[in-house]
Amino acid sequence: MNLPFIFHSQTIDGLAFNDEQVTVRLKTETLDFDSVYVRIEPDNEEYLVDMAQVGTAGELLLWEASFRPNQDRDVTHYVFKLLKDGQQYWLDARGVQKRIPPKEFHFKLNVEHQPPSWVQEQVFYQIFPDRFSASKSESDIRHAYAQYDSASIVKAWGDAVGSHQNTGAREFFGGDLKGVEQKLDYLEQLGVTALYFNPIFSSPSNHKYDTTDYFTVDPMFGTNDQFAELCEKIRGKNMKIVLDAVFNHTSVHHPWFDIHQKGEGAYGNPQSKFRDYYFFEGETNHYIGWKGIGNLPVLNFENEQVRDYIYQSEDSVIKYWLKPPYLVDGWRFDVIHMLGEGDGAKNNAHYVAAFRNATKSVNPNAYVLGEHFFEATQWLQGDQEDGAMNYYGFAHPVRAFIARQDIVYDPINIDGLEFKAWLDEARVKIPFSNQLSQLNQLDSHDTARFITLVDGDKRKMNIALAMLMTYVGTPCIYYGSEVGLEGGLDPDNRRCFPWNEIESSQWLSLYQQWIKIRKQCKPLQSGCIQWLHCTNNQLAYARVLGREAVVVMINLSGNECSIDLPMWQLGLEVSQVVSLLGDTEQVDYKGHISVNMSAQSCKLWRLK
Amino acid sequence: MNLPFIFHSQTIDGLAFNDEQVTVRLKTETLDFDSVYVRIEPDNEEYLVDMAQVGTAGELLLWEASFRPNQDRDVTHYVFKLLKDGQQYWLDARGVQKRIPPKEFHFKLNVEHQPPSWVQEQVFYQIFPDRFSASKSESDIRHAYAQYDSASIVKAWGDAVGSHQNTGAREFFGGDLKGVEQKLDYLEQLGVTALYFNPIFSSPSNHKYDTTDYFTVDPMFGTNDQFAELCEKIRGKNMKIVLDAVFNHTSVHHPWFDIHQKGEGAYGNPQSKFRDYYFFEGETNHYIGWKGIGNLPVLNFENEQVRDYIYQSEDSVIKYWLKPPYLVDGWRFDVIHMLGEGDGAKNNAHYVAAFRNATKSVNPNAYVLGEHFFEATQWLQGDQEDGAMNYYGFAHPVRAFIARQDIVYDPINIDGLEFKAWLDEARVKIPFSNQLSQLNQLDSHDTARFITLVDGDKRKMNIALAMLMTYVGTPCIYYGSEVGLEGGLDPDNRRCFPWNEIESSQWLSLYQQWIKIRKQCKPLQSGCIQWLHCTNNQLAYARVLGREAVVVMINLSGNECSIDLPMWQLGLEVSQVVSLLGDTEQVDYKGHISVNMSAQSCKLWRLK
Repeated sequence: MNLPFIFHSQTIDGLAFNDEQVTVRLKTETLDFDSVYVRIEPDNEEYLVDMAQVGTAGELLLWEASFRPNQDRDVTHYVFKLLKDGQQYWLDARGVQKRIPPKEFHFKLNVEHQPPSWVQEQVFYQIFPDRFSASKSESDIRHAYAQYDSASIVKAWGDAVGSHQNTGAREFFGGDLKGVEQKLDYLEQLGVTALYFNPIFSSPSNHKYDTTDYFTVDPMFGTNDQFAELCEKIRGKNMKIVLDAVFNHTSVHHPWFDIHQKGEGAYGNPQSKFRDYYFFEGETNHYIGWKGIGNLPVLNFENEQVRDYIYQSEDSVIKYWLKPPYLVDGWRFDVIHMLGEGDGAKNNAHYVAAFRNATKSVNPNAYVLGEHFFEATQWLQGDQEDGAMNYYGFAHPVRAFIARQDIVYDPINIDGLEFKAWLDEARVKIPFSNQLSQLNQLDSHDTARFITLVDGDKRKMNIALAMLMTYVGTPCIYYGSEVGLEGGLDPDNRRCFPWNEIESSQWLSLYQQWIKIRKQCKPLQSGCIQWLHCTNNQLAYARVLGREAVVVMINLSGNECSIDLPMWQLGLEVSQVVSLLGDTEQVDYKGHISVNMSAQSCKLWRLK
Repeated sequence: MNLPFIFHSQTIDGLAFNDEQVTVRLKTETLDFDSVYVRIEPDNEEYLVDMAQVGTAGELLLWEASFRPNQDRDVTHYVFKLLKDGQQYWLDARGVQKRIPPKEFHFKLNVEHQPPSWVQEQVFYQIFPDRFSASKSESDIRHAYAQYDSASIVKAWGDAVGSHQNTGAREFFGGDLKGVEQKLDYLEQLGVTALYFNPIFSSPSNHKYDTTDYFTVDPMFGTNDQFAELCEKIRGKNMKIVLDAVFNHTSVHHPWFDIHQKGEGAYGNPQSKFRDYYFFEGETNHYIGWKGIGNLPVLNFENEQVRDYIYQSEDSVIKYWLKPPYLVDGWRFDVIHMLGEGDGAKNNAHYVAAFRNATKSVNPNAYVLGEHFFEATQWLQGDQEDGAMNYYGFAHPVRAFIARQDIVYDPINIDGLEFKAWLDEARVKIPFSNQLSQLNQLDSHDTARFITLVDGDKRKMNIALAMLMTYVGTPCIYYGSEVGLEGGLDPDNRRCFPWNEIESSQWLSLYQQWIKIRKQCKPLQSGCIQWLHCTNNQLAYARVLGREAVVVMINLSGNECSIDLPMWQLGLEVSQVVSLLGDTEQVDYKGHISVNMSAQSCKLWRLK
């Protein structure tokens, strides 16, 4: 039994809402349906609202209905129920089903909480400060570290990164904020528009996920004033700034903890006023460390002073950096799913929402970004995070499909159908505006670099970039990827940026091309996704926004192939098909188009 | 690619736990796996725990691992990850997957909250008191109603039920508690072990979902003393009692509301001390009624007095009937998903948990049963309800598959694969012990009777009964079904019990047979479910508990067929196959068994 074509877009094409009313549009194949309803659940009870036919779009019928958004909760769920000839067709966020869909796949709309719209317009760039760019000479860096912390190991820019077992987190290359400032013109030419910085606050390690002072930029990176200046300059380039917020734990050298017992800290001091900032076993020196790591004592948010310091008071850490002169545009909250009361994640949802509220109280347009290595659906319903580092819904499936590895480097083998199902499942369980605000990455400071996983294969990298730049969510490039920087497991994935390779890099123009396409095409930033084709090794989808669309075609197989696109399903009036990847192919627009694809290739069309 | 056989039972076969430790066992096909892990998420972070091979079961390998249950929340999620030859195999509660499963399908265990174990051992029987059995003569009934409420319409037992438009909820047949008492021997002979009563408290309607006094049995049903006596007698039969709790709304004649303004009620009286028990628009007479029905003003649980009265105080309604002399064994909470603060379901989860806690504070072994016409996953994670009236996960799919109607009487057409997927999806999202405590029904006072939906087709009814009595969950029979009582939409589904048809009924012995089987076979009450076969029209599954199993085979098609059962997957040592439905078939037990099925039939085997 063929299922009829039915589609709902949660963009301007199909959804309008305010506090009082939601209006939804549905597109269907031209068939004599017996009934067309939108099903809602005010106060958890089913209501079927009749939809009226309000016009046509291409070969499709348009239906419309309005209803009141849920009053008892922030999120409104809805699905569509259509009847025809003794059959039922339900449309949920995955597609057409033959029975009432489970709640997790209903369309979701959070009327109260929307992410800032600027996020989806960006191309992010992630900077690991010690390794991106150094403003000082090697000898000056050595001198500075020698004075600051004699246990530091300073290496020459570009030297091999030492293993954790070897020099660990104490080896430095001297990247700093001035170094970033010197490269702003480069970043502008690359085309990126927002910078996400790994931690910059005082900390003894090179990664700085063990903070000793949340209010001070690490002296080896620069001063607070220099950071304020850098922010000003970044804003001058019309770029955004997101900082890393490491509030789950501190360094053992934070004055609150004070492992060497030089001051009033909690360690070895049951009477310390900071004792309950952490979680000690009675009067002993046993405490909870992040994932058992003694170096990273976990903060206890049951403690009012911790809450005040981090987010609750007017001069809390979260608020401080959002205010002048820094005015950062968002926070990326490190391992935020683990944070809570006592020794773990108790009442976690409460604290994530509280972090959100503290952030938005200073800047309602700030970006609240959570780090989650696995499924993050529960934090992404609108009232907690705007978006997450999208490992589960993007990096994992892309890595599995193209590089045949999972996130803990176990082999995995999935075909195109499973890949699509994974992408869909992860995406559609969250409200659409949060889907657009997910931060999609191929790799990061916590994973091997994608180029290394595919052994530098240019065609696979190009397909991965196509996904990064055209799939739903906001792309983020990990520094150095644009010049083909390699890197295996952490810390090898944190090599120094090879500035001397920019001129000769075969990758840079490819990245520039993709970034330019992403920025030029509004549908890639804000459009809905409509799948047009999916088989074991071939995929095609459109990103559609109003009358504009971009069609993405991918062939991952080692053989050339032909794929059929049911373009009529887009319901668009198209006068011209423009090929965006430089090929000069002429395409006649028709309801059905057959496309030849060479081995391991992608094509991109803009419909006008 | 064939998937390997991997199975995990959440019964005594595969799961043991206490507050400190969970031990899980896994059964797999005999293959050289590269790794076998159980994946857990303490504090929302992935941990992979190696499983050790600890023995064999039949042709299967047994694996075991232990871990600490989640400390930050009540529910512990886990799944299994197996690696072999560059492929991944994940086992979630649905079955084997090729990639990490979404969270909703992970196995779930609520260490803190378990339903009472007696529930799964019962066969429930639902009584609509006005229509089940009358102890008085018709003239006595007429006399009593005339004195009590002259607006009542009294009909002779067995007369046709009037439509809502016609006589509505004011027509009575005179069933009462004494009438129930007179039929206890009958119910015992039928074999049922627990009685669920539709509302029995004072109310002007025949259905009594509009309460006027929560502490008094309706005078036309009897007195509180008579109810106490009935309870005593029911307990004497070793039967359980569950009452209907209608706390979402009251009658407009409840003294708190008092629509005729005879007393101090809220209606027309903005100064009433009961005003905030409901939700009025300012000083007007506009108030919120359940689903807009003016007759059923919604209670506002934001009001402390409402909370005290219903569940919070020591002499609250919930606690009162759980205490001597009544000692009822559980509550069935009417439309509990809609209940909350103000005009709707705000903070609903809080109140459902509070109702649970109030119930369990008097009797930790009481049954907390929620009424939900649609998906109830969110109330069934252990800390709110023990079980729900399982419309979504049982009645809807069975009705769709066998009777081709959905719950609002729209036609629907699903095949066996979709049927199984629906059952699985609904079932596996809740902890296993809650699955067993779901109340499965074919019909109720809110639906057309199943026998009417299938036009009295005996073979279809037999298949439906097979599902009711062998599927996961606790069966409940709607009064009269056992003698073939017909009935269309409400109120026609509430006809008088035809006591004069008992002797001649072709149905009664069928029901008795099925009830006996259910009660005799522990695996049907408490066993896990293992699917053995599923095609468009054929299904087979086993319920397995320890070394015992019952195999259920169903052929819904109009043609005879043969189905193949991979019995080796049960991992059992079987010496004898006993046919339970009276046929004398001899079955040789083998790893693979082929079974001939006649048209629209079922078979049931007990493996010994």
